[in-house]
Amino acid sequence: MKKACIVSIGNELLNGRTVDTNAHWLSTQLLELGIPTEEIWVVGDDIDHIVSCFKQASEVGDIILVSGGLGPTDDDLTRQALAKFLGVELEFKQDLYDGLKAFFESRKVVMASINSVQAYIPKGTKVIANPVGTAPGMHATFNGKDLFSVPGVPVEMKSMYKDYIYPLLASQKTSPVVLTERILCYGAGESTIAQQLGNRMKRGRNPLINCTVCGGQITLHVVATADDFNHARSMIVQQKQELVSILGSLVYSTEDETLPEVVGKLLRQRKMNLVTAESCTGGLIGKLLTDAAGSSDYYLGGWITYSNESKIRDLGISKELLETHGAVSEPVARAMALGAQAKASADAAIGISGIAGPGGGTEQKPVGLVYIAVVSGRDVEVREFRFSPLAREMIRQRAALTALNMLRLKLGV
Amino acid sequence: MKKACIVSIGNELLNGRTVDTNAHWLSTQLLELGIPTEEIWVVGDDIDHIVSCFKQASEVGDIILVSGGLGPTDDDLTRQALAKFLGVELEFKQDLYDGLKAFFESRKVVMASINSVQAYIPKGTKVIANPVGTAPGMHATFNGKDLFSVPGVPVEMKSMYKDYIYPLLASQKTSPVVLTERILCYGAGESTIAQQLGNRMKRGRNPLINCTVCGGQITLHVVATADDFNHARSMIVQQKQELVSILGSLVYSTEDETLPEVVGKLLRQRKMNLVTAESCTGGLIGKLLTDAAGSSDYYLGGWITYSNESKIRDLGISKELLETHGAVSEPVARAMALGAQAKASADAAIGISGIAGPGGGTEQKPVGLVYIAVVSGRDVEVREFRFSPLAREMIRQRAALTALNMLRLKLGV
Repeated sequence: MKKACIVSIGNELLNGRTVDTNAHWLSTQLLELGIPTEEIWVVGDDIDHIVSCFKQASEVGDIILVSGGLGPTDDDLTRQALAKFLGVELEFKQDLYDGLKAFFESRKVVMASINSVQAYIPKGTKVIANPVGTAPGMHATFNGKDLFSVPGVPVEMKSMYKDYIYPLLASQKTSPVVLTERILCYGAGESTIAQQLGNRMKRGRNPLINCTVCGGQITLHVVATADDFNHARSMIVQQKQELVSILGSLVYSTEDETLPEVVGKLLRQRKMNLVTAESCTGGLIGKLLTDAAGSSDYYLGGWITYSNESKIRDLGISKELLETHGAVSEPVARAMALGAQAKASADAAIGISGIAGPGGGTEQKPVGLVYIAVVSGRDVEVREFRFSPLAREMIRQRAALTALNMLRLKLGV
Repeated sequence: MKKACIVSIGNELLNGRTVDTNAHWLSTQLLELGIPTEEIWVVGDDIDHIVSCFKQASEVGDIILVSGGLGPTDDDLTRQALAKFLGVELEFKQDLYDGLKAFFESRKVVMASINSVQAYIPKGTKVIANPVGTAPGMHATFNGKDLFSVPGVPVEMKSMYKDYIYPLLASQKTSPVVLTERILCYGAGESTIAQQLGNRMKRGRNPLINCTVCGGQITLHVVATADDFNHARSMIVQQKQELVSILGSLVYSTEDETLPEVVGKLLRQRKMNLVTAESCTGGLIGKLLTDAAGSSDYYLGGWITYSNESKIRDLGISKELLETHGAVSEPVARAMALGAQAKASADAAIGISGIAGPGGGTEQKPVGLVYIAVVSGRDVEVREFRFSPLAREMIRQRAALTALNMLRLKLGV
């Protein structure tokens, strides 16, 4: 099985000015061809660093994808570094030069003299045409390995990948095939899920199951390796079925949907609509729901009742209830959800009240304490949560997702 | 001058599932200490790859920052790889184990047995405490070099950097001193700002001015290099003053505040409160305002009027107005802001209505069309915007920030 390495070149990637998204994009594309990326390097515009990187990359990978450093200015050094790595000279290409002149003429711009360096490529390498910009790409072959060098500008890089690199790699049939699909879970920690799956998560297993965590959402990556696509696909299908049957309602999607999208799908299926009454999340649940296009089909809107006055005025919560229990309490979260449902004659409602911090906590009601009420028809559920009190952003994110997850479970998985 | 290398570990970074933002964040932080990042490596969860990476990194850099691979599951191998690299055994730490147990107990959760692997660290390394999660970090010293290993979860990584790594690196004086500070702008494009600044943005200048763009916000990074801290600092102060006088009200912060924080500060200074009435942004403005701790001092709350019914019911907008002009119109945005202000007897209000797409556009009212109304006292301003129709998320983000920026300008810069 062929393996790839990706090298991203440019000082701007090392000084925090630019996030390297090219490597991410390329690794996704390669995986679709069943080619795993072994390592990614990011190096600055320095000939010796780049050459040393090419050496290391060609020890690890059979396919080396290089982006960046092909511009016309002094700090673009990939051409020189590739020539040095291959042990050849740079060669002037008349057809490249003519192409550059034509490119500028078609835009009615005089070609700057510095652009002519882009007509030089290392002897013996093939030109990858650039229909979008001036820098040509380069394709070198050595020891049965392929090195592709493309510009760092994403639109140029992508265009060269699609027109030249992809067809070439696709024609070099690779076997075995590696496929990856995902199962998305909410409602338990990584270690709980790992325990339920037991030695299914062992390394070296096929299919392999990897686990990543983000904001309380657990993603299980199921990676199957097989001789052909159909076999890999059927291994994945079978493995996903087994995982779903073990994890049950912890799984909210096997199709890469977001939690708000899943909630939206369930509401649409049940022809139900939803309103929200948010305090500590301050609009975040509404924002997450309306991230999905077409959410107006089921989301009627909501109230951001950040003050007691608005809870009383807009949701009909009594002053006595607020004074007796406090705004962050089980009865107030319940009254918020029920008040919102009644006000809008909605089918379902979420009410949420908590202390996101960093201030405002007490011993009895610490930062991280959140009450979430979910109403569907006449069914009301209110739960208390104590999220890790360290980061306001995390408490709000967890609270919003937990509310959506409670609604998902109530609507039936 | 010390140099750094960054190693990001995790299969999810190689299979296109996750973009590595940790390396980008860390390189920015290091640059503020005057420490350049020489190379970034991304490797999978494979002991031999990780060890080989550590070797290469310690040839290039004096400071090696490693993130990822510290979780409790079988695919988390950074602990083992670090022990192998250092040529030592993993050692059980009773205090780490007790800390883990306490972490779970405080959350009323039984600790899964697999979590106990997180109580092992390579012999001779120091523990970096994790106040946010379960995985401890590690700090190894060898040949006068420092290797820091932190979790890949951004909030945990950042917390360890700020509490442990930053103070330690800052105490190791480096000369020359490189300081970076930022000026944040909203309301003009990158090229307009570049034109206003002229050759102040030339490469190689000291202080150097770099420019980055994100979601319509322009950040100017002012980088001063000098022999001592005071000199670098005074160069920065002088340069920032000049830039502010050139750019005027385009500048919303010279102190790294967010736009919602600046709006909050102005409202607080003026003892004013604010309500929001959101349609196309669906709660995003409320979310952005309440990201700031203490926002209940000035933000009373708002209405997410995602349906016409809620606009009529909650904001007192007449059915006729909606029928005559449509929900996405100048008069309706105005009526939303005024209705919200009146309902809550608030000092200031934002009303916003638009078409975020991808569906719902017409020739007359295309995707990206947004009306924003801002009210302060009896002063009302309504503006029409046509944002690039390409991404729903971008339209919503731009619309929300533009509304906050209009309010900032109305409150006086």
